[in-house]
Amino acid sequence: MPIMVLSFQPVLELIAEEIRGLGDRGRPADYIPALAAGDPHRFGMAVAELDGTVYGVGDWQQPFSAQSVTKVYTLALALAHEGELLWEHVGREPSGNPFNSLVQLEYENGIPRNPFINAGALVVTDRLHRLTGDASGALRDFLRAESGNADLDFDRDVAASETAHGDRNAALAHFMASYGNISTPVPTLLREYFRQCSVETSCADLAVATGFLARHGIRADGSRLLTRSQAKQVNAVMLTCGTYDAAGDFAYRVGLPGKSGVGGAIIAVVPGRCTLCVWSPGLDARGNSVAGVTALDRFTTLTGLSVF
Amino acid sequence: MPIMVLSFQPVLELIAEEIRGLGDRGRPADYIPALAAGDPHRFGMAVAELDGTVYGVGDWQQPFSAQSVTKVYTLALALAHEGELLWEHVGREPSGNPFNSLVQLEYENGIPRNPFINAGALVVTDRLHRLTGDASGALRDFLRAESGNADLDFDRDVAASETAHGDRNAALAHFMASYGNISTPVPTLLREYFRQCSVETSCADLAVATGFLARHGIRADGSRLLTRSQAKQVNAVMLTCGTYDAAGDFAYRVGLPGKSGVGGAIIAVVPGRCTLCVWSPGLDARGNSVAGVTALDRFTTLTGLSVF
Amino acid sequence: MPIMVLSFQPVLELIAEEIRGLGDRGRPADYIPALAAGDPHRFGMAVAELDGTVYGVGDWQQPFSAQSVTKVYTLALALAHEGELLWEHVGREPSGNPFNSLVQLEYENGIPRNPFINAGALVVTDRLHRLTGDASGALRDFLRAESGNADLDFDRDVAASETAHGDRNAALAHFMASYGNISTPVPTLLREYFRQCSVETSCADLAVATGFLARHGIRADGSRLLTRSQAKQVNAVMLTCGTYDAAGDFAYRVGLPGKSGVGGAIIAVVPGRCTLCVWSPGLDARGNSVAGVTALDRFTTLTGLSVF
Amino acid sequence: MPIMVLSFQPVLELIAEEIRGLGDRGRPADYIPALAAGDPHRFGMAVAELDGTVYGVGDWQQPFSAQSVTKVYTLALALAHEGELLWEHVGREPSGNPFNSLVQLEYENGIPRNPFINAGALVVTDRLHRLTGDASGALRDFLRAESGNADLDFDRDVAASETAHGDRNAALAHFMASYGNISTPVPTLLREYFRQCSVETSCADLAVATGFLARHGIRADGSRLLTRSQAKQVNAVMLTCGTYDAAGDFAYRVGLPGKSGVGGAIIAVVPGRCTLCVWSPGLDARGNSVAGVTALDRFTTLTGLSVF
Repeated sequence: MPIMVLSFQPVLELIAEEIRGLGDRGRPADYIPALAAGDPHRFGMAVAELDGTVYGVGDWQQPFSAQSVTKVYTLALALAHEGELLWEHVGREPSGNPFNSLVQLEYENGIPRNPFINAGALVVTDRLHRLTGDASGALRDFLRAESGNADLDFDRDVAASETAHGDRNAALAHFMASYGNISTPVPTLLREYFRQCSVETSCADLAVATGFLARHGIRADGSRLLTRSQAKQVNAVMLTCGTYDAAGDFAYRVGLPGKSGVGGAIIAVVPGRCTLCVWSPGLDARGNSVAGVTALDRFTTLTGLSVF
Repeated sequence: MPIMVLSFQPVLELIAEEIRGLGDRGRPADYIPALAAGDPHRFGMAVAELDGTVYGVGDWQQPFSAQSVTKVYTLALALAHEGELLWEHVGREPSGNPFNSLVQLEYENGIPRNPFINAGALVVTDRLHRLTGDASGALRDFLRAESGNADLDFDRDVAASETAHGDRNAALAHFMASYGNISTPVPTLLREYFRQCSVETSCADLAVATGFLARHGIRADGSRLLTRSQAKQVNAVMLTCGTYDAAGDFAYRVGLPGKSGVGGAIIAVVPGRCTLCVWSPGLDARGNSVAGVTALDRFTTLTGLSVF
Repeated sequence: MPIMVLSFQPVLELIAEEIRGLGDRGRPADYIPALAAGDPHRFGMAVAELDGTVYGVGDWQQPFSAQSVTKVYTLALALAHEGELLWEHVGREPSGNPFNSLVQLEYENGIPRNPFINAGALVVTDRLHRLTGDASGALRDFLRAESGNADLDFDRDVAASETAHGDRNAALAHFMASYGNISTPVPTLLREYFRQCSVETSCADLAVATGFLARHGIRADGSRLLTRSQAKQVNAVMLTCGTYDAAGDFAYRVGLPGKSGVGGAIIAVVPGRCTLCVWSPGLDARGNSVAGVTALDRFTTLTGLSVF
Repeated sequence: MPIMVLSFQPVLELIAEEIRGLGDRGRPADYIPALAAGDPHRFGMAVAELDGTVYGVGDWQQPFSAQSVTKVYTLALALAHEGELLWEHVGREPSGNPFNSLVQLEYENGIPRNPFINAGALVVTDRLHRLTGDASGALRDFLRAESGNADLDFDRDVAASETAHGDRNAALAHFMASYGNISTPVPTLLREYFRQCSVETSCADLAVATGFLARHGIRADGSRLLTRSQAKQVNAVMLTCGTYDAAGDFAYRVGLPGKSGVGGAIIAVVPGRCTLCVWSPGLDARGNSVAGVTALDRFTTLTGLSVF
């Protein structure tokens, strides 16, 4: 029988204690130097309640590179601006293939499977940039407002490093442009995309900033970003597509909408209840934080707060 | 704001009224004569509460061919018998490809992506048959006990028709056997598999029989079939893989664990609250009942009972 | 400058001498016991002139399992019986994938890429069996007549062993049957197919029996099997598709139409001049005899008898 | 029985007459305006003997855009400069997929299947540019010298048009760069590549300029470009990979090493005997000139000059 939770703090302490005993913690992403230096023994976790009350443990205030976790916020912003039309440019089905795959993109005429594979995130950034004229700025402003951290910003070194190793994303962007599914010039699009990935933030910031998805679309200041239906939809896409080709396994083990990044962060949502962010840089073969997934698994088991 | 539900009956009536005005209802499956005769204007829907109280509308007591919906019960039975070892033989990731695809099976050495594509269901049937000696009998007995309908049975004509058109499933079974992932002789396995698909049942029966998944694993008689964790896992696999290659779209629109069959039925689970079965024989291009998905979409919108 | 050849005997002696010094000779096929016992140090080679004069070296009279080399003769017989209509059931393009691949078969609606991948050979056998009522008998009679060896026959143990390990070919046959591209009952088709593969023969037999392809379609007894155009076509298909997914490399190195088998044999044709058969059981990663390809490479280099 | 040829002129006249009666001639390539204007009723054909004597019919002196036909000369030049090491960067197997496919490139770690698909030609251009510092200049100089036409040059409008529609080739180049298989900066590489494709030439020029492949590697001035073995290899790659995914069919029908371009030209080689160039802008679904393939088919049938 799951325990009844009065405060999340003891649960986080218990999980952190268990994680200390965890054996294999995976390896940090190594495709850019800034990430390769990550220490798999670092671990932080935060839970934010609907009103913004936040609980944390370990390195929960330690800054890290948000990477693909930002795809959730960019999606929410693009959906808020463009509505249903967005789905003419990007699908919402699991990809069933590793996250950089070009195969399905070719079979499906340049329409990426979902907004959380790189190709899909490039399309979402393209739409947001077209609508706002400043996709990365819109993301930064949103995260500052929702997290309450006015110092949150891009990490220029990380963005520069991504750009220097950006041939694969350039290939994706040119490929989709050849199908007419990109409207921003490719070099501009890549600059915006890599900036977004480079956001430096913390578990505390992200747990709080994700609150709008637990509040069915309501922002921190009480205004509405997404309709109730749109918020549900973003959560659904996170559950089915948020953890690369391990989405099924994540749903099976954790049972929450979640989104991971190669920096080692994972955010998760308990609709109507709370939001979480966990961070540990060691990744498994599919690009998800080993300690992060384990911690979320323990959280839902201990609290019974799975959507299933 | 979703309405507060005292009884499900008025909601069902409202949905049935809306469905009457639905334009394109798709086409019945045409690969066997028994299904091709289905009338897309037939529609039934039932909701069962945790205690077995059942509400229905339209053709909710009309018998139909359960087809792939039975894959959920076979999975639950195999999981109850074999536990975690089952996952050495079948994965739990979305396939990202149409439901008969051999491609991934080849790239992944004969281990099907999940229990709900045909290849995966053949493997689950193989495991269950190995463990019980009578896979189809175990399924029938279970469905009779859970639904309370002692007359529930296979439709021999449908099973014979499936067998006569069974080359593709025979190909899948032999292919997996070539990788050592099938232990039952292929002709026996196919007989068991086609029998399961041929179960004749109704919305009323299936809504009630699925209750164990809303009750976190507890059967109708109060005994436990699955652990709480296993019940959660089955629900997760339904959500990410239950509707062929439209699982993302189903999660996005409906937001519930669900499983469809080419007979036109779809079952769905609101964990801790209720179970549903809807039936209408007209299918969309991806094999899911058009009116069925629409009805479930309306149900979650009207009641707010999505998992997201 | 290539040497001028008066007799092929000294060339064969020279090649055999070089092969004796060859290091890595690959490994015998191991999917059935009868082949796994093959010794990679065995080596035989024969050349037959248009008039049937035959030269040989090493184990050129040693019986071995012809395996896929027989696909050439089955194709020629089916083409002689059915003419151009045959190509409605099987293509003549390189597959670009390993020889058992189901992937392209799925994308191309059950029409195999070419007659020399297993799926294609099953289709050709199906056509020949439909037209003659005895596909394997037709093949045996043809090989006896063309080689002049009246004792040439199937190896029942090999055929039985193939059948016992035949799940993958059963999958292919059922899969094509599901597209309506197989008319013989699958068990009968498999029996015929495995019998053909099991033909026991020698370099001497096969070099002589292949003569009709160097004589532009004329059989050993002077009658015509294929039109000049059809003989050219069979040679073309051998060159582009005869050595699994190494056809490009074989054309590049050897420059002759050729067909290999997992028993270690390779036949090759110098149109208008002579035919060859080489045998050595050690295979490379793509299923072609290592010493066999090397010997043919040397032959064309020493004699200048490439088609290029 | 094929006719004995004293002069090629009457054969060409006969073929031109037959082509005049040809019904469906396909459609010109339409991805750039410069090609879309091509008239499928234009037709030219030229044959060059080993000594440079050239025969022609129809529009055999009409300038057209050489396009992918130039890939043969670039390959020959790169092979002459780099030798066998070239094959570490590009394969020599048929692709089995349409000519722009990214799929195999992904499965095979950025090494293109052969030098005649776009990805492979980009790699060959990259190698040649690295070795000469001026890949397009090296090609132009070579074609001028071999054809004897000092005015032969690039068409700037065509090159500009290719660049403006170059997203797919940019995607290919960046994708291979992400695997480390491109050393030239992508924008430079694309400029060189599109220049090569834009060469304006004629059947007369190309038939003569291809002579080195019929002369086993010897250039027009008697010097050696390729070893006898290398010339054989280029011919082999043309036969197995020269006509996109119709190479098998081209070998079957024509039976000569050949290379086509979307401008409507096809070159072909009868080793030791002559070279051909045919041109007609109407293409079939696989990108090869309809009248061109038909004309070559007739040529080999009438003269018996197939390699098979």
